[in-house]
Amino acid sequence: MTTTPELRPKRGPLDGITVLDFSRVLAGPYCTMILADLGARVIKIEKLGTGDDTRVWGPLVDHEGVKESAYFMCFNRGKESIALDIKSPRDRELLERMFAKADVVVENFRPGVMERLGYGAEHLARTHPHLVYASISGFGHTGPYSDLPGYDMVVQAMGGIMSLTGWPDSPPARVGTSFGDLGAALFAAVGIIASLYKRTGDAQGSRVDIGMLDCQAALMETALARFDVEGEVPTRTGDSHPSLAPFETFAASDGRFVIAAGNDQLFMLLAEALGSPELALDTRFLSNDLRCRHRSELVKAIETIVSTAPMAHWIDLLNVAGVPCAPINTIDKLFTHPQLRARNMIVQVEGEAGRAVRTAGNPIKLGAFVESDPRVPIKSPALNEHREAILAELMAGTGDYAAAESEDTPTAPSTLGGPAVPATP
Amino acid sequence: MTTTPELRPKRGPLDGITVLDFSRVLAGPYCTMILADLGARVIKIEKLGTGDDTRVWGPLVDHEGVKESAYFMCFNRGKESIALDIKSPRDRELLERMFAKADVVVENFRPGVMERLGYGAEHLARTHPHLVYASISGFGHTGPYSDLPGYDMVVQAMGGIMSLTGWPDSPPARVGTSFGDLGAALFAAVGIIASLYKRTGDAQGSRVDIGMLDCQAALMETALARFDVEGEVPTRTGDSHPSLAPFETFAASDGRFVIAAGNDQLFMLLAEALGSPELALDTRFLSNDLRCRHRSELVKAIETIVSTAPMAHWIDLLNVAGVPCAPINTIDKLFTHPQLRARNMIVQVEGEAGRAVRTAGNPIKLGAFVESDPRVPIKSPALNEHREAILAELMAGTGDYAAAESEDTPTAPSTLGGPAVPATP
Repeated sequence: MTTTPELRPKRGPLDGITVLDFSRVLAGPYCTMILADLGARVIKIEKLGTGDDTRVWGPLVDHEGVKESAYFMCFNRGKESIALDIKSPRDRELLERMFAKADVVVENFRPGVMERLGYGAEHLARTHPHLVYASISGFGHTGPYSDLPGYDMVVQAMGGIMSLTGWPDSPPARVGTSFGDLGAALFAAVGIIASLYKRTGDAQGSRVDIGMLDCQAALMETALARFDVEGEVPTRTGDSHPSLAPFETFAASDGRFVIAAGNDQLFMLLAEALGSPELALDTRFLSNDLRCRHRSELVKAIETIVSTAPMAHWIDLLNVAGVPCAPINTIDKLFTHPQLRARNMIVQVEGEAGRAVRTAGNPIKLGAFVESDPRVPIKSPALNEHREAILAELMAGTGDYAAAESEDTPTAPSTLGGPAVPATP
Repeated sequence: MTTTPELRPKRGPLDGITVLDFSRVLAGPYCTMILADLGARVIKIEKLGTGDDTRVWGPLVDHEGVKESAYFMCFNRGKESIALDIKSPRDRELLERMFAKADVVVENFRPGVMERLGYGAEHLARTHPHLVYASISGFGHTGPYSDLPGYDMVVQAMGGIMSLTGWPDSPPARVGTSFGDLGAALFAAVGIIASLYKRTGDAQGSRVDIGMLDCQAALMETALARFDVEGEVPTRTGDSHPSLAPFETFAASDGRFVIAAGNDQLFMLLAEALGSPELALDTRFLSNDLRCRHRSELVKAIETIVSTAPMAHWIDLLNVAGVPCAPINTIDKLFTHPQLRARNMIVQVEGEAGRAVRTAGNPIKLGAFVESDPRVPIKSPALNEHREAILAELMAGTGDYAAAESEDTPTAPSTLGGPAVPATP
């Protein structure tokens, strides 16, 4: 492990952008992590005393007597932290100076919370019209459900994905990671950056209102259309794609692996590679439609062959033939995966305790920017770690929040400067 | 059903942006659908004769003798289509005029295909440096796996999500929709729009290289960190969150529903709402950590209560108490869901056949733009439908591709105009 963590991993297309991040737990922090990975300066506004709820969530790193949340570190890498008592006049004044200098506000409270603090979207749109103001909530800020609490599990259930995930003869399963939070975080990032783009033309901020349930519906692929056209309720299909075959797992002699040969040409290549070209001529398997209809016979025919040798044998063989296939990797396999390593996808994050934790890096690879060194951990902030530096900057009145960090950036910072009107809570 | 489909659903922050979309099937088209939903003009460059592979994929709408793919319609709404023979000199000349006028190129071929056509990223970066050039592929354009074919199912297996999804005593399950494609599409959209933002500062395009496997790793939440810290391989947890309890499904008298009470306060509210405040004082259930450790006893204690009445009873009761909960909805329930309807999340798409199909709309709700009328179908293009209009525009040499459509937009179009250097294939 190296010893010099980096505050911000690298330059990126959002250099010069400052995000005030009121969000906590997962959807908001994952969204602002994406923004930070792309070069934005993200300042976490945390609750005095305890900070982001996840600062005490497991898995906990225990290093030289300091217990620290790896959960928090993963999603808050490369951010700064200031703890504020939003109800105190002094901290409100500070915050209002920060609004004037920032570009983006992100929050994921239940609708109404920011309004009660005096910093709702409508209010800030009047006092600081340059701000892009993004909310992520369970159901969005409009509609009859908007006041209900929404969590990942709730929208995974309500939005349909659980009804499609798992085996038909078992109860619905959850997607193994927080698909509800992460999906919403990604749509929020798209909305925020699109609004920043628009702002370069008209100097106006925007309101971005993301509902996790909406995002779930948007991620249902063709499930809605299938019901609308065919009248049958789509259900769980275990490990196979509902409308492609073969596109599922098969048992080799030492375990299960995936073959995904979803068109006729790939199926022909597969049949040849397996040494059974006659499979591709079988009248039951002549088209994808026919193969879907005779799926169980197809699976049986393929398994009769692949069960005679270990997975690695078939994967090597199919890779040479150009047939998509894969082992079902457990998480431990990702750390040493040659492709993920070559793509700099395993990075280290490090908090106060000074014990680095490995997690996944930024998958948005941009030619114009140099990837950070994966051996150097990216710093996640201690609670309130940057208070003094931020105060000093604000008091110095340098006028440009991002200036200290982005003076050598080739892109013009887009910070438009604060409005003349002071915020009146 | 109404009768006047809309080519482009509404104005949006990407008004004035033109995308040349060489992509087909899902990851690319889903990405450019997001761009189109945000106001970009997306021109699909399709294969002469057959077009996008999915034009013949089910579910098929059969209307007045025309069979048409609802799969295609869903992800290509609001786009234009031109079919080109990229190997013919005449069509290449056309294409090069289009590159000069466009802002973004998106492709999801296997690495090498665009290069062989003479339109690889490096080449276009020299001839048309203003272009944002985005590739989505299974493994990205670098690294030892970059030449392998990657499909959704392949990266779901290789990237770890299957090992986490399903029940511990059943084989790994696939996420019920194409998580591999959709995740990559979203990260690609983020990378493209961030690059457009950067371009407003330095007038330079970018290379965006998205690998589906990278995106899978990025979506593993804390699974990597959990293994790194605790040394145990994370596995499938069925319908529960691995580190929150209660956060899973429970059997009411008429079916299963979700309760997500992941912190002490919510657990207390839950216990009270269920009429068993003593649950919150039980020493086994005093903290989230303890509740996770005694999960099976906790589930049993709660199910003893909730199994006495139907789901709706408990959901009403918990909603009033402020405890997150939800029915496990099947897809048919989404069409009439009051919140999704209020948020304009059920839209119609319509192709040549003139039979509208319902699907999910755009979840990025932007205050500055008016939502389109969900009763008016959004048009998906017939193969080559816009050839003549596009040719006429190019021949007229109006100089700005998007001008015809965006002349009344309040935001300045960002089209930078073509470079002086002609493309030399």
